[in-house]
Amino acid sequence: MNTTANRKMRMGMVGGGKDAFIGSVHRVAAALDGEIELVCGAFSSDPAKSRASGETLYLPANRIYADFPTMIAEEKELPEGERMDFVSIVTPNHMHFPPAKLALENGFPVVCDKPMTLNLAEAKELAALVERTGLLFCLTHNYTGYPMVKQARDMIKDGQLGKLRKVVVEYPQGWLSTPVQNKQADWRTDPQRSGVAGCMGDIGTHAANLAEFITGLKITEMCADLTTFVEGRRLDDDGNVLLRFEHGAKGVLHASQISVGEENDLNIRVYGEKGGLKWRQMDPNTLIATHLDGPQQTLRTGVNPLSEATQKHIRIPPPGHPEGYLEAFGNLYRNFARTLRSRLKGETPDPIYTDFPTARDGVRGMAFIETVVAASQSGEKWMRMKE
Amino acid sequence: MNTTANRKMRMGMVGGGKDAFIGSVHRVAAALDGEIELVCGAFSSDPAKSRASGETLYLPANRIYADFPTMIAEEKELPEGERMDFVSIVTPNHMHFPPAKLALENGFPVVCDKPMTLNLAEAKELAALVERTGLLFCLTHNYTGYPMVKQARDMIKDGQLGKLRKVVVEYPQGWLSTPVQNKQADWRTDPQRSGVAGCMGDIGTHAANLAEFITGLKITEMCADLTTFVEGRRLDDDGNVLLRFEHGAKGVLHASQISVGEENDLNIRVYGEKGGLKWRQMDPNTLIATHLDGPQQTLRTGVNPLSEATQKHIRIPPPGHPEGYLEAFGNLYRNFARTLRSRLKGETPDPIYTDFPTARDGVRGMAFIETVVAASQSGEKWMRMKE
Amino acid sequence: MNTTANRKMRMGMVGGGKDAFIGSVHRVAAALDGEIELVCGAFSSDPAKSRASGETLYLPANRIYADFPTMIAEEKELPEGERMDFVSIVTPNHMHFPPAKLALENGFPVVCDKPMTLNLAEAKELAALVERTGLLFCLTHNYTGYPMVKQARDMIKDGQLGKLRKVVVEYPQGWLSTPVQNKQADWRTDPQRSGVAGCMGDIGTHAANLAEFITGLKITEMCADLTTFVEGRRLDDDGNVLLRFEHGAKGVLHASQISVGEENDLNIRVYGEKGGLKWRQMDPNTLIATHLDGPQQTLRTGVNPLSEATQKHIRIPPPGHPEGYLEAFGNLYRNFARTLRSRLKGETPDPIYTDFPTARDGVRGMAFIETVVAASQSGEKWMRMKE
Amino acid sequence: MNTTANRKMRMGMVGGGKDAFIGSVHRVAAALDGEIELVCGAFSSDPAKSRASGETLYLPANRIYADFPTMIAEEKELPEGERMDFVSIVTPNHMHFPPAKLALENGFPVVCDKPMTLNLAEAKELAALVERTGLLFCLTHNYTGYPMVKQARDMIKDGQLGKLRKVVVEYPQGWLSTPVQNKQADWRTDPQRSGVAGCMGDIGTHAANLAEFITGLKITEMCADLTTFVEGRRLDDDGNVLLRFEHGAKGVLHASQISVGEENDLNIRVYGEKGGLKWRQMDPNTLIATHLDGPQQTLRTGVNPLSEATQKHIRIPPPGHPEGYLEAFGNLYRNFARTLRSRLKGETPDPIYTDFPTARDGVRGMAFIETVVAASQSGEKWMRMKE
Repeated sequence: MNTTANRKMRMGMVGGGKDAFIGSVHRVAAALDGEIELVCGAFSSDPAKSRASGETLYLPANRIYADFPTMIAEEKELPEGERMDFVSIVTPNHMHFPPAKLALENGFPVVCDKPMTLNLAEAKELAALVERTGLLFCLTHNYTGYPMVKQARDMIKDGQLGKLRKVVVEYPQGWLSTPVQNKQADWRTDPQRSGVAGCMGDIGTHAANLAEFITGLKITEMCADLTTFVEGRRLDDDGNVLLRFEHGAKGVLHASQISVGEENDLNIRVYGEKGGLKWRQMDPNTLIATHLDGPQQTLRTGVNPLSEATQKHIRIPPPGHPEGYLEAFGNLYRNFARTLRSRLKGETPDPIYTDFPTARDGVRGMAFIETVVAASQSGEKWMRMKE
Repeated sequence: MNTTANRKMRMGMVGGGKDAFIGSVHRVAAALDGEIELVCGAFSSDPAKSRASGETLYLPANRIYADFPTMIAEEKELPEGERMDFVSIVTPNHMHFPPAKLALENGFPVVCDKPMTLNLAEAKELAALVERTGLLFCLTHNYTGYPMVKQARDMIKDGQLGKLRKVVVEYPQGWLSTPVQNKQADWRTDPQRSGVAGCMGDIGTHAANLAEFITGLKITEMCADLTTFVEGRRLDDDGNVLLRFEHGAKGVLHASQISVGEENDLNIRVYGEKGGLKWRQMDPNTLIATHLDGPQQTLRTGVNPLSEATQKHIRIPPPGHPEGYLEAFGNLYRNFARTLRSRLKGETPDPIYTDFPTARDGVRGMAFIETVVAASQSGEKWMRMKE
Repeated sequence: MNTTANRKMRMGMVGGGKDAFIGSVHRVAAALDGEIELVCGAFSSDPAKSRASGETLYLPANRIYADFPTMIAEEKELPEGERMDFVSIVTPNHMHFPPAKLALENGFPVVCDKPMTLNLAEAKELAALVERTGLLFCLTHNYTGYPMVKQARDMIKDGQLGKLRKVVVEYPQGWLSTPVQNKQADWRTDPQRSGVAGCMGDIGTHAANLAEFITGLKITEMCADLTTFVEGRRLDDDGNVLLRFEHGAKGVLHASQISVGEENDLNIRVYGEKGGLKWRQMDPNTLIATHLDGPQQTLRTGVNPLSEATQKHIRIPPPGHPEGYLEAFGNLYRNFARTLRSRLKGETPDPIYTDFPTARDGVRGMAFIETVVAASQSGEKWMRMKE
Repeated sequence: MNTTANRKMRMGMVGGGKDAFIGSVHRVAAALDGEIELVCGAFSSDPAKSRASGETLYLPANRIYADFPTMIAEEKELPEGERMDFVSIVTPNHMHFPPAKLALENGFPVVCDKPMTLNLAEAKELAALVERTGLLFCLTHNYTGYPMVKQARDMIKDGQLGKLRKVVVEYPQGWLSTPVQNKQADWRTDPQRSGVAGCMGDIGTHAANLAEFITGLKITEMCADLTTFVEGRRLDDDGNVLLRFEHGAKGVLHASQISVGEENDLNIRVYGEKGGLKWRQMDPNTLIATHLDGPQQTLRTGVNPLSEATQKHIRIPPPGHPEGYLEAFGNLYRNFARTLRSRLKGETPDPIYTDFPTARDGVRGMAFIETVVAASQSGEKWMRMKE
């Protein structure tokens, strides 16, 4: 056993400088359980900005790097127990692949924001590299980190809904209802940095991932109608999709960034032969369960019975102390850190903590994006999921 | 002016005997405002049952008829002011056309349950007859009777949402999740009595009607995936549909009778360039309004400002006294009665009360049903609305 | 058996002319089940207004009376089966006692709006008269007519909550937040017409009645702090009360007419040793049930299991078709009519329909009003319920 | 300027060993913003347990202390920049005073869980010591850390509600409905460790603090009825209280640990002459605003306009990413750390970050507890707030 791994896991970050939304989310998520410490970073493509960002994070000057190749190269030279244990990549989509590839090639496990890459080809290459190196890779489909999402998955796996029939998954937002111009909006609507899809890549892929994660069913075919409502925008800002899943289940997925007044309303409903489940990200500690007979039940984090996995993803056991987005995101980091530590110590990881999304989910997400765009452009009704 | 019309309007009913769900709903709806009285009926195809039903309704024996042709023939012979003023038809779908036709041909205005007929051809014939006779015809798309549905329509007509972009309309139910066998389920799943569609005819048509009523936009194309999930059932019990509307708006419509645990959850969301609206039938006195900037508002029946039409469809002006399904249904009857009385008195009806659905809406509903079934069967992506 | 009673019960109304809020509510409530017909009325203390009101209700001129003594005298002379079967009193509080007394003395059963009288002395006199005559008397504590209120009562009676510990009942409104002046506000804030209490008489008494109806426990003591917040108002417009019930249960009751933005938010929570129940008038078809272990349940009208009494107070059995205030109010009228008809026919009334509030509840309501006002004025902590 | 303070603030913890609920909450709260690091602790009165707890937190052996006097003594000897900057106290109530006093006397600022001490006398002594030393002291009335609580406070301070009239604050829980026996329940129901109040000390004091924080009004008098419902329990498990505030506002406060099925449902409603506000801890990112005219608004974290202070307490600016209990708790720690760092650097702290509760709030909380217990025991109606 490697007892030197009996410590916080050391994280190096790529991206996430000042003004970046998601970088700060990753840092809080990594910090909150006291199992990870940020030890270094290349926070911006602009070295000065990287330095300024690192200083506000109280990092020592010699661990703030001008760019990610330097970071990877120099950290690799540090002794174990001092050098970073893994890299977290929080750049815009087009800048996921290069640092992820370099990190893996140099022996560093990776946590990467979604979607995994700019296109399906890159995704497949990266997944192959993960496979070849055997290194841990976590894709932050963060909504799978919510305890009640685990609960839904476990109830379905346990057969409580019977054979599944229908899935409705929605992800409406309204923040791009007008021709917004800011750092966040700019890259998300730019095909060079975001990829072939806008709304569908940014949030539709979360919806598809959530549906597959909860149901355990793969999407097999889709029929899509994507739209760019705001004049001058170069990518879709809204999309409606009919889904077909394995084993005969049907579904609807719609996502939007022009649904005025909607905040971040990812939600899913699943109906089987014997029961149904409803979950809404904006009220994440609640899971509604319906049954063929009798009243619906309001399942809640902290109110048992809950599955073992659900319970192990709740930080505040007494019910009614709401946990939110950061805690769900943190569950991915905590699980990644625990799994990584187990590996470093030569122990078998607890399977409850290895359920974070991987490069395989990343390939699937990119396949979803490319399929949904193609389906929308096609005159044919159904398009099979590429992969 | 015909002052003899200064009285309650007299209603004769076809169908709605004991055990019928919708007949009793029509009777309450007609009664509650004190503007209509039930004076006669042919309540069942079984004369004994018709008689028994009429007696429980305290009708005199000579106004309980063995069948609707007898009712229409005999009532016609009664003096004005004694004979029925109009016929209300509350039979299963296949029995809408015959009594409606006979009533109109004998000079009686008609209130008819939806969908209007068994198929589009009948609908067109009936609409032509309405046109030719000039008689009033009300199709009970009852959900358009809710005050906050009027409010949504009026806000959109007034331009408060700007150009419309997206419509999501849902109608999930769960009562046919298993092979139910009872009077209600039997005819609704029987093509001979229900028509070519099951779920889509019974409730999908309400959803489509509501979307067009609120938005003022016509559905132009649809792409559908209907399913029969329960083995042995002869009609669809679930359906997912992509919609395209006039003027570039897009939409999703899904309806289901196998969504376990769902009650009668018709709901709609509409998003335009400047704002959004959300309404849910199970919480009908609330209309959520969203805006490009600032917080969402919870509009409520009884809390002004509301449109004039909305206010005139509220019975209990102080807010917080919930009105429901029967009151909304009653609004159709009350408006029909008021318009009919105005006509009988030779007065111009108040346009606020003439907004009940008509035979034209009935044709449109049948066109929706036949199109959505054809679209589902087709391999082509889009099918134009038949009509 | 008196078969002539096999008909709609005939109602004469006192009060409820144009502009009256509650009169029209009573008429709809009475009409909606087709078991009662309005046959006559003295709708206003102003004969011309009474006549005009009667005409808009399509009553024949000879059944529209100038005042209630005339109505009672003349109706009494009509043959049975033509004359009114009972009197409904919908005047302001100070005008409940005189017509109720006269009606009873002349053999007419009475439906009376709440609170029953202007003061406790009148209430006791009226209750004694009801007792002596043996006539039916219904006090319209309408909130007890809701199906889920019956369900709550039945679950508690059935012991499902165990011994009761705590009751929280609230009735916030906001409509008198400013010095409102209109017909409704005027009499409700006038001690000559409303009695010794304003808010507590108008709505506090509903809250107290609901708490006792649901729990089956009598309030024994109270400690009150009533306030008149709006300058110049002569009666309380807000009040906070600590309650003690029989058998050791404790409670809080607060009611308000100055809670800005509150509509009509009567609600109650009851907690026992084994479970809890929560009901809210503005969402009346839902009853939340909590348990010592496991998730809370959302009981709903139309979703079984429900008690027999609950089921018999639902008009639309399929769930999700909301019933509201008028239907609950109508349940009182329907039950009164059914019980009256049974009596007229010499049959034993179904006990499920005899649960409407009576003169005894009226006495209790007046006792509540006088006690709560005295308790507020007192420097002593606890005051025993007068009665 | 002391640039050595340009670093994370170093925290030493007293209490919070394994199985402690609140210790782990404090650690997450302190960690999540990357402004504080845990450097040492005396986690238990049992040295072995303290050691084991410290090891799971990855602390070096020489910074895990056997008891808090040792910790304070030894840390004091360490050089600045290595030694802890402040002490966090997360023990049961009776063990707040001794370590807080010792820390202050040795120059260490303190974060202390609530209620501040075992009794009012201790509280006053501690507040005097804070005053004398001039050291920072933060009492973790964590619910004041929620952004929408700041928003409510700021709207009221800004006069948007006008003069305040009524406050309703509730804190129902159900976890002590039966004679629970576990570490948490044990000390909370033991007068030696918890103080003179059970429910009122544990959660009633949060409710009182929240009411005063939001309204800016002091409670002046109270009338209370506390109860111990569970046989054998030595402290109150439920309480109902009438409140009077400065400037004529009235209120109701009730708290309970026997409200079966309630989780942690702290909530508050405030009504003024011009508007009202409603906030619920279990849905903390929403604040309902009502107005004399027009519809209610749903204010949300992330949806502007919000006050500057509100905005500065939101970690995830895009709306719809729920923040919860830990983030609110973290706001207290972050603000404490920022204020402490400013002081260490010789800078003036940003007043937005100095709004954490202090020893003065602690005195007030203890005064509430002793007053409410005395009020309940008294036969007099009103008791003035001790202080």
